Amino acid sequence: MLEKIDLSVTVKKDVFKAAMEEMETKLGLLQRQCKEAGIPVMILFEGMGAAGKGTQINRLIQAMDPRGFSVYASSRPTEEEKYRPFLWQYWTKTPAKGRITIFDRSWYRRVQVDRFDGLTDEASLPSAFQDILSFEKQLTDDGTVIIKLFLYISKEEQKKRFKKLADSKETAWRVSDSDWARNKDYDRYLKINEEMLERTETEYAPWTIIEATDRNYAAMKIMSTVTSRLAYELEKKQEAKEAAKRSVPKTVPSDKYKNGVLSGIDLSKKLTQSQYKKELDQLQKRLEILHSELYRLRIPVVLGFEGWDAGGKGGAIKRLTSRLDPRGYQVNPTASPNDIEKVHHYLWRFWNNVPKAGHIAIFDRTWYGRVMVERIEGFCTEAEWKRAYQEINEMEAHMANAGAVVLKFWLHIDKDEQERRFKERMENPAKQWKITDEDWRNREKWDLYEEAVNEMLVRTSTTYAPWIVVEGNDKYYARVKVVKTVVEALEKKIKEVKKAQKGKPEK
Amino acid sequence: MLEKIDLSVTVKKDVFKAAMEEMETKLGLLQRQCKEAGIPVMILFEGMGAAGKGTQINRLIQAMDPRGFSVYASSRPTEEEKYRPFLWQYWTKTPAKGRITIFDRSWYRRVQVDRFDGLTDEASLPSAFQDILSFEKQLTDDGTVIIKLFLYISKEEQKKRFKKLADSKETAWRVSDSDWARNKDYDRYLKINEEMLERTETEYAPWTIIEATDRNYAAMKIMSTVTSRLAYELEKKQEAKEAAKRSVPKTVPSDKYKNGVLSGIDLSKKLTQSQYKKELDQLQKRLEILHSELYRLRIPVVLGFEGWDAGGKGGAIKRLTSRLDPRGYQVNPTASPNDIEKVHHYLWRFWNNVPKAGHIAIFDRTWYGRVMVERIEGFCTEAEWKRAYQEINEMEAHMANAGAVVLKFWLHIDKDEQERRFKERMENPAKQWKITDEDWRNREKWDLYEEAVNEMLVRTSTTYAPWIVVEGNDKYYARVKVVKTVVEALEKKIKEVKKAQKGKPEK
Repeated sequence: MLEKIDLSVTVKKDVFKAAMEEMETKLGLLQRQCKEAGIPVMILFEGMGAAGKGTQINRLIQAMDPRGFSVYASSRPTEEEKYRPFLWQYWTKTPAKGRITIFDRSWYRRVQVDRFDGLTDEASLPSAFQDILSFEKQLTDDGTVIIKLFLYISKEEQKKRFKKLADSKETAWRVSDSDWARNKDYDRYLKINEEMLERTETEYAPWTIIEATDRNYAAMKIMSTVTSRLAYELEKKQEAKEAAKRSVPKTVPSDKYKNGVLSGIDLSKKLTQSQYKKELDQLQKRLEILHSELYRLRIPVVLGFEGWDAGGKGGAIKRLTSRLDPRGYQVNPTASPNDIEKVHHYLWRFWNNVPKAGHIAIFDRTWYGRVMVERIEGFCTEAEWKRAYQEINEMEAHMANAGAVVLKFWLHIDKDEQERRFKERMENPAKQWKITDEDWRNREKWDLYEEAVNEMLVRTSTTYAPWIVVEGNDKYYARVKVVKTVVEALEKKIKEVKKAQKGKPEK
Repeated sequence: MLEKIDLSVTVKKDVFKAAMEEMETKLGLLQRQCKEAGIPVMILFEGMGAAGKGTQINRLIQAMDPRGFSVYASSRPTEEEKYRPFLWQYWTKTPAKGRITIFDRSWYRRVQVDRFDGLTDEASLPSAFQDILSFEKQLTDDGTVIIKLFLYISKEEQKKRFKKLADSKETAWRVSDSDWARNKDYDRYLKINEEMLERTETEYAPWTIIEATDRNYAAMKIMSTVTSRLAYELEKKQEAKEAAKRSVPKTVPSDKYKNGVLSGIDLSKKLTQSQYKKELDQLQKRLEILHSELYRLRIPVVLGFEGWDAGGKGGAIKRLTSRLDPRGYQVNPTASPNDIEKVHHYLWRFWNNVPKAGHIAIFDRTWYGRVMVERIEGFCTEAEWKRAYQEINEMEAHMANAGAVVLKFWLHIDKDEQERRFKERMENPAKQWKITDEDWRNREKWDLYEEAVNEMLVRTSTTYAPWIVVEGNDKYYARVKVVKTVVEALEKKIKEVKKAQKGKPEK
């Protein structure tokens, strides 16, 4: 692929000046139009060392309104980043609607420079590529435009540039030993880059190779790539809008999930108070010890709680955390998205709360809102919630790939039990705040929810992130089941990790 | 102070149980009331090692609604934190209105454990205490409630607890060498803590000493301290609200600032195009070199831009950045606060953008909005903007104490020049978006703004963070002056830093 590129292309100064001036004005206009249209844009600068990424980024942004973009330079991961899935730092940096984020190196370092340096395990490459493809797909499906640029220079040109930098006192620090190592082993590094380009070339997020020997030529090609792509996307968005006006969306009716998992749940299971006290006490003690093991082994844990209103989520979470060290867990309640969250991908706010390795993140309501309340209330389109099952599975797989324990609980009660609990809350002054009109309104949609939950359970219960349906009519039984399930899953994971560590040579 | 504390106090189990149950219900209620009243609350847990901070925090939060609080454990600073002023990490974590943040160790580590370990320079202590006092004052002035708890145990008790932890395989890792060092040198550590307690005991943020030998006693005292303080603050807020209804705020009229700094500015200064091109080119080249020196010496730079609408802020910023490496600077545009920013202290969003050491942060409009647009449009009270001068000076002093170069530019033009530029913008299709009805409305308030700017320049131009009034009728002159001022300030700072480094022994 790269050997076909002619690195000797140049441009005359007067042609360059005239073309750039015209395109810069155009870029300013396109940026404003993208802002108005609410299109998020990501521009990636990848390529060989000393190909001029920094200089080219600066040229590009001079033509932009600084209120509308951010530049993000990706370097060796910080401690915060090292202890999280590798896409975490990029998910949290994805642009809001109408904004542009420029990446000086990006998530590709995982399969490129980090691979060359031996920091990325060869065995993890297939899943890394898969995670990258999912990430880009999810964002483009949500309307983000991803422009990927690869700045290319030859081995000789690179050597010349490194030498020039190294010769000057002011710039010598910019050339590292790793830079020289990559120049020396240029062919191997190039091959790694070629593989990356080939495996991640997609229709929705294509690569553009920038011949970067002549800096002016490169600047011009970058500018024209960016402007023509933005113009194309704006037009596409306009067309889609008009097409949407003409066609009436139709839903294929299906009652496939009317009777599903939930109808088979045995809600008569219960425990006596003394059984409950004894079992819970023992489990909590085990959990306390496991929690400090998790920390030492740097295992991240993600626990999601969903369930009927008044299903007992809060009580279960409390029993789970009451003896844990608060420095090692966080409860993240999920309410309606705020105005910052609304202008990002719906998974963005959950990405922001991904736990550090060794910590437990508990979500009181979760990303599954997309396929429940958002589906039922029409807060997203049918295409969007249908796509969400896969997106969610991909997100959870990415966390599991990073070593996380991922469990999701559905706290199940029946309609009569819910009514009893609602009434009890209304009569108890200390609990009245827990019950709102919305709870009663949701109750009227019980059947719609049941269908959605049945579908969700089937489509998103995976080996790496299973759903646990908790029989919740008896609170004692439910709480013990939740804590027990967590304890057993952690014990299993800890055993696996210890076994894997034993197999490895000591460092 | 601490020697007067009786560490042998205990509580009977039945008294404890009954009292806790009552207070826990009360705390739940108070939390909801504080939420409704929009009161932000910070609860700090400080104290001796093994005094039980973690356990006590967990006891406290069991009685709270997890949707309303966060726990933040402060440990040795991460890289992100190390390269910023020490209060940065805490400013960014301050709670929104109605939320509670619990700190397991806090900003006090700077004057306590870090001091003991020799990480805090003794010479920097006075300014560290001053910065802490300002921080707490600013937050409480803005309505935040700060509850500071100090958990106290004796040397013998501490030793016993460390031993118990160290003896068990599961918990041995929790006792570090530094823990033992602090136990061995208990008296010196205690003295450091006493000094901290004395120097930061204020009426608005008092300390409560918690006798922590008996864990139940400690839990009870913590619970009662928190509940009674919240109840007190709620009552105070209610009273203040009613008092505000009765009294009519009166403004003492003053025309002291009608004629001030701005009236003496010579707007006839100008440069020819050729002078401009030559000077700018030379300055930009110097700046490029200085930028990489800044990075190597880890000097942070904060540049604020204010000025009349159409005063040329954007053009000046562009000339400043056009040759810089985008990885080393960030332009932060300031618009009206969004809904997250609105529920925080007005300085919070700027704290979020404090530059890392070695980086330049450029603010296109700044925190001075408080004493200009917010003052004039009545978005804050008179007491608030009057207090802001000192608050802003304190913030800038804190940045300067951390080694930052802080410069603020006022881009000054006269009313005729503004009109000419507004009209030009309206006639040029590529610039029309830059001019809005609001610009014309602001123009009508020119005299009010002039008075506010005059007062601002006098009250907030300091040796450590000076204002530079830029004669802006001639764009060439203005841009060169901005870049030149920055270049000279950086050269001066770099010289100072290098000199200081030479004096130090090599590491």
